[in-house]
Amino acid sequence: MLERIAVLGAGSWGTAFAKVLADSGRDVVLWARRPEIAEAINTRRENADYLPGIRLPGKLVSTSDAAVALDGADAVALAVPSQTLRHNLETWKPLLPKGSTLVSLAKGVELGTLKRMSEVITEVAGVGEHEVAVVTGPNLAPEIAQEQPTAAVIACVDHDRAVELQEACTTGYFRPYTNTDVIGCELGGACKNVIALSCGMATGLGFGDNTIATLITRGLAETARLGAALGADPLTFAGLAGLGDLVASCSSPLARNRSFGERLGRGETLEQALEAAHGQVAEGVKSCSSIRALALRHGVEMPITDVVHRVCHDQLDPRTVAGELIGRKTKPER
Amino acid sequence: MLERIAVLGAGSWGTAFAKVLADSGRDVVLWARRPEIAEAINTRRENADYLPGIRLPGKLVSTSDAAVALDGADAVALAVPSQTLRHNLETWKPLLPKGSTLVSLAKGVELGTLKRMSEVITEVAGVGEHEVAVVTGPNLAPEIAQEQPTAAVIACVDHDRAVELQEACTTGYFRPYTNTDVIGCELGGACKNVIALSCGMATGLGFGDNTIATLITRGLAETARLGAALGADPLTFAGLAGLGDLVASCSSPLARNRSFGERLGRGETLEQALEAAHGQVAEGVKSCSSIRALALRHGVEMPITDVVHRVCHDQLDPRTVAGELIGRKTKPER
Repeated sequence: MLERIAVLGAGSWGTAFAKVLADSGRDVVLWARRPEIAEAINTRRENADYLPGIRLPGKLVSTSDAAVALDGADAVALAVPSQTLRHNLETWKPLLPKGSTLVSLAKGVELGTLKRMSEVITEVAGVGEHEVAVVTGPNLAPEIAQEQPTAAVIACVDHDRAVELQEACTTGYFRPYTNTDVIGCELGGACKNVIALSCGMATGLGFGDNTIATLITRGLAETARLGAALGADPLTFAGLAGLGDLVASCSSPLARNRSFGERLGRGETLEQALEAAHGQVAEGVKSCSSIRALALRHGVEMPITDVVHRVCHDQLDPRTVAGELIGRKTKPER
Repeated sequence: MLERIAVLGAGSWGTAFAKVLADSGRDVVLWARRPEIAEAINTRRENADYLPGIRLPGKLVSTSDAAVALDGADAVALAVPSQTLRHNLETWKPLLPKGSTLVSLAKGVELGTLKRMSEVITEVAGVGEHEVAVVTGPNLAPEIAQEQPTAAVIACVDHDRAVELQEACTTGYFRPYTNTDVIGCELGGACKNVIALSCGMATGLGFGDNTIATLITRGLAETARLGAALGADPLTFAGLAGLGDLVASCSSPLARNRSFGERLGRGETLEQALEAAHGQVAEGVKSCSSIRALALRHGVEMPITDVVHRVCHDQLDPRTVAGELIGRKTKPER
């Protein structure tokens, strides 16, 4: 049984997931990079920067010392951005308790190596893939923090380990399902950030819900094509880690990638959009490049990802690619 | 080539589709039940009751005389509510031009007979299924009327006939794809109305986008289960006629079933919701019963449809079934 769990990273999702674990009765230590955030959580029971107004439970304590957080942890949840996970994990490696379950909360594909987050973890931590789990699904952090009912997915090639983690994070409002298709679950999570960017762009360009629905449908289709090439189970994309996560990210004004894309669609530059997001770059801005490279390597056509990449990195005006986002020649659907 | 097309039914979708056909260069005659609507379309180029502010093209004329509308038509689009289609078609049967393509724009399953709309058409008109086509997809009428880019699906067991209709309704903003899986396309369209009602209820009950995303995911899964039992192609549900249509109807405040469900979720009675909708009952209110009966006949579990049915027809308070809509015991996703 997972009694004591470390959550490394006190952004909105790390903090919300730490709250879920504490609400499920676990002893949780949340590591925050900035000591003042750890201090505020311990004294005022709030992470005002990332989850303002949410009262954090007493079973959740915070520290800015990773060694303290990791000491005696049965599981370690990694809640840092996907492109910094490798560097962070290298620092934490000597402190990781042997045999603990390593849990990825990040959604992305690493630039350069084109590795999924669980692959980065097994490589850096030097552990087997059965020791690594992934939490994903339609999980907007602010809603979970408000205890809105939410389904989630715990993916691990080791079903028993997934069940153990499932038990550790089941509450009245958070309902995780297990899945052994780690590849499909991670690709669903990474690709949805890119599709959400495209939906934001379309909204910013003035398009309506028919267009968004079409982008979601075609976006899931290109995600599933990449999944097929990488050995994922096609059914995963029809489930919570595929469709569910995608719909939540593409529909909600709370979702960071959608909002970011909307600014680009309205004609703001990447720099302006970044500034409006308080310097936090949306995950999809980086992942669109690594996913596109992965698709090229495997000969998979991903037209929406390609457009998003060109807007984000080739200074392409979204208005000039609006037609490409939506229109292709009339033909059978497949 | 389909030169002259009759559209029977001047509600918002019938009128918007008639505009698409006219914009694609066809001669369109739109039948309206009320002579004053036909008159207003012909003189003021507007259907103010159903598509206010939209200027209708000159190639579209309107009449309240079905014989005039049907005279010499190469195709006949049926845009009346699903539960009145049989009665209307019986009246029109003697007027249908021989060999014309009959096109269903309605999304539903007939109460009592549990037949899909194309089945009702073949039965009443006494034609073969190759003569019947279905138009479906993420098609919110007001957006199409505003010429927002939209993808759609033309389903017909006769691929060549589908292509002919596709050519007749392709415009810069309306992009139809063909599909030969009529069963899957019709089920996707009928079931999405019910799932959209459930999403509206959840919104009315105060739930957020994670919950909606979960309902959409599980709703599509139960639709696909019914489809499998009835011989549909499972891939159809991942496409525009399944996922695409469902997402558009569940996300958009323009969508009638979602708005209707939202009123029920907020605690209004069926009568109050009906009154707010100017007496227009949402398709899903009737279809939930026929789809539920179809599921029972085929031994398919459809928990969301079942809840919607009980709220709409057994006076169940949506608050008491909120848990049922969302929560099931933790288990593997499939």
